[in-house]
Amino acid sequence: MQRNAYLLCRKVAVPLMRARQMSVGHGLTTVEVDDKSGIAILTMNRPPVNGLNLELLQDIKTSIDTIESNKSRGLILTSSSNSIFSAGLDIMEMYKPDKDRVRKFWIALQDTWLSLYGSGIPTAAAINGHSPAGGCLLATACEFRTMLPNFTIGLNETKLGIVAPKWFMATFLNVLPVRQAEMALTQGKMFTTDEALRVGLIDSVTENKSAAISECQKFIQTFEKVNPFARSLTKQQFRQKDLQQFEDERDNDLEAFLFFINQPSVQKGLGIYIESLKKKAKQ
Amino acid sequence: MQRNAYLLCRKVAVPLMRARQMSVGHGLTTVEVDDKSGIAILTMNRPPVNGLNLELLQDIKTSIDTIESNKSRGLILTSSSNSIFSAGLDIMEMYKPDKDRVRKFWIALQDTWLSLYGSGIPTAAAINGHSPAGGCLLATACEFRTMLPNFTIGLNETKLGIVAPKWFMATFLNVLPVRQAEMALTQGKMFTTDEALRVGLIDSVTENKSAAISECQKFIQTFEKVNPFARSLTKQQFRQKDLQQFEDERDNDLEAFLFFINQPSVQKGLGIYIESLKKKAKQ
Amino acid sequence: MQRNAYLLCRKVAVPLMRARQMSVGHGLTTVEVDDKSGIAILTMNRPPVNGLNLELLQDIKTSIDTIESNKSRGLILTSSSNSIFSAGLDIMEMYKPDKDRVRKFWIALQDTWLSLYGSGIPTAAAINGHSPAGGCLLATACEFRTMLPNFTIGLNETKLGIVAPKWFMATFLNVLPVRQAEMALTQGKMFTTDEALRVGLIDSVTENKSAAISECQKFIQTFEKVNPFARSLTKQQFRQKDLQQFEDERDNDLEAFLFFINQPSVQKGLGIYIESLKKKAKQ
Repeated sequence: MQRNAYLLCRKVAVPLMRARQMSVGHGLTTVEVDDKSGIAILTMNRPPVNGLNLELLQDIKTSIDTIESNKSRGLILTSSSNSIFSAGLDIMEMYKPDKDRVRKFWIALQDTWLSLYGSGIPTAAAINGHSPAGGCLLATACEFRTMLPNFTIGLNETKLGIVAPKWFMATFLNVLPVRQAEMALTQGKMFTTDEALRVGLIDSVTENKSAAISECQKFIQTFEKVNPFARSLTKQQFRQKDLQQFEDERDNDLEAFLFFINQPSVQKGLGIYIESLKKKAKQ
Repeated sequence: MQRNAYLLCRKVAVPLMRARQMSVGHGLTTVEVDDKSGIAILTMNRPPVNGLNLELLQDIKTSIDTIESNKSRGLILTSSSNSIFSAGLDIMEMYKPDKDRVRKFWIALQDTWLSLYGSGIPTAAAINGHSPAGGCLLATACEFRTMLPNFTIGLNETKLGIVAPKWFMATFLNVLPVRQAEMALTQGKMFTTDEALRVGLIDSVTENKSAAISECQKFIQTFEKVNPFARSLTKQQFRQKDLQQFEDERDNDLEAFLFFINQPSVQKGLGIYIESLKKKAKQ
Repeated sequence: MQRNAYLLCRKVAVPLMRARQMSVGHGLTTVEVDDKSGIAILTMNRPPVNGLNLELLQDIKTSIDTIESNKSRGLILTSSSNSIFSAGLDIMEMYKPDKDRVRKFWIALQDTWLSLYGSGIPTAAAINGHSPAGGCLLATACEFRTMLPNFTIGLNETKLGIVAPKWFMATFLNVLPVRQAEMALTQGKMFTTDEALRVGLIDSVTENKSAAISECQKFIQTFEKVNPFARSLTKQQFRQKDLQQFEDERDNDLEAFLFFINQPSVQKGLGIYIESLKKKAKQ
């Protein structure tokens, strides 16, 4: 049917990558499409920790949209780092923020999530490193998760003195049982790879990045005999309640974030946290 | 209390069956009421595969209503076939459909589900054969499921190029964890008996049909010391959100189905599928 | 931050207890605050079975509010009995009820639940005895449950000929998978300690009351490094849907209860039940 669309490039997606990078201009992600499988690998590449700043979010969002419009047969999200999947939101976007930029930053986060959680094509996360907060959000927005041993994943917002937005929670609850989700969210729990597997936060453990990519490909190939259009509608219908609630509340969510981030106590807390990170870095 | 109402017939429900068959006139189901237990067995009997066409659906719906109004103490849904519980919607109802009939067909499916999912009495499925799509819908609409070994069950709509309606999904989600449900629905996964047990899609495995019927009776008898009126209200309150959402959307659901089924691409797909079935049948 | 507020009393919370007992006046609960941990133990003390009558409910509610306003770091709910956590609603409040009192009674139950389920501080139940119906409601309204061996817990309303209100169900569903919840609610199932653990209705089994209290303290201490304000908002956001639905329906819920309880058949049923309890007591 539309499968010829998947086979655009014989070499590993060079034309696509160039096209995407040109249009975005930040160069913080790469996209490779395997011309045999039609599956795209989207790699976050903002050293050292894939902190989600405005530009990285914009690049992820644009990459997702490009992959989808190119009729790729699936999307694998991973990281160029060998110890961090993504450290979550870049705290520097929130500390003493520029008024316009911080607004764009949050909207970019919302848009990225919307593209990923609502994506029509199969999505899988190859979690090749730690994945707290926003990193966990991206991983749980995918349809499948495999993770390398001895890393951690979770929505640890309460430990940072903040509250995970409702749509973070909805994404989490699309994966975890309600009992586990409430406990993890209130505790700000970071699960080890083994704990994450046991509780269902990830679907499998893989020994290294290449095995993780293979595992994600295997998941995406479970849809080989599935009608892509029916699949896409099914997924969107399944996630519709969450997507609808997000749309209904996204303006409020933005204002709530901006209000919160501008509280003196929050700014003070962020300042202390940044100082402690600097000290750690020096040690 | 009202238990004498259960004991209408000394012989195996012959009067009841006749009454029902007379009123319905299609003869595609049988109902037996055990006069000791007061439990009714509703058997789908449209060879070869219990394809859910207009008449079978009407008979199932009428049988459910009759069983309920006769104050039976429980309903066991099963099949007269020894390899198929129900093969799901009869594809011939949807291929080059008569305009009036296909509308009645979908309404009959909606009504049947509504009667079964919202039934006040305990319901159990003795799944004595394969149970894809609409067959799985009927099984999951019951309160309990036991299944014979080496068969398959699931909502495999995406594999057929169609989308399970929202109320199919709601019924599925009343049984399976959200994580398992999303994966199964997008994959159009058919679970083997063993897989179905592991994931919770069925409650037990039984060796043969008679053991399955006994298992269902045992489940229904767990309500022996339960007030039937309180039980019925509890079940309806528990399922109210799904039932309410269905009522709110049933007209849209009908129109969406009719629109979908009349798409040339869908008709073409159905045609190809029917040809492939014919070829298989000849082999 | 606000942690000095937790350390109000050097001796075991005597001032707090006195203050609370004075303001309430029924003396059916005690509150002890450990000055080292800042954790409050709220003990229901209405022998012989902690039947939830108007006064006990008022005392529990007032105790919760006092504990919360004193910035305690957590609340442990337990019983002074060594065989009953709480036997649930006091049936005598519902049998031939005084019109004004029975209204106050139900409102007190609603308020108590609202305070406990919506409490900002960590809550845990040390279930040191049987915990049917209203007892199970209080236990599941907490964030964590540990239970002593060889007791039973569950929402057994259907066995008593009544229907657990929607907010009982919502509380139950915040703990149990939907499949387990529906079966348990319709069956009016009382789970043994072991069964409750297996299904997830409790989180752990502890050998005796003192071990149960320790286990609850351990749970509450998992929040030690969590920002209390962020934690509280996270919990309330997580439970918001249930809390909102309750607020929307609480007036209807009250009227439905009053209507139901005044049915002659219900009064008759309660009368028979009370007689049977009296006979048992004499044996």
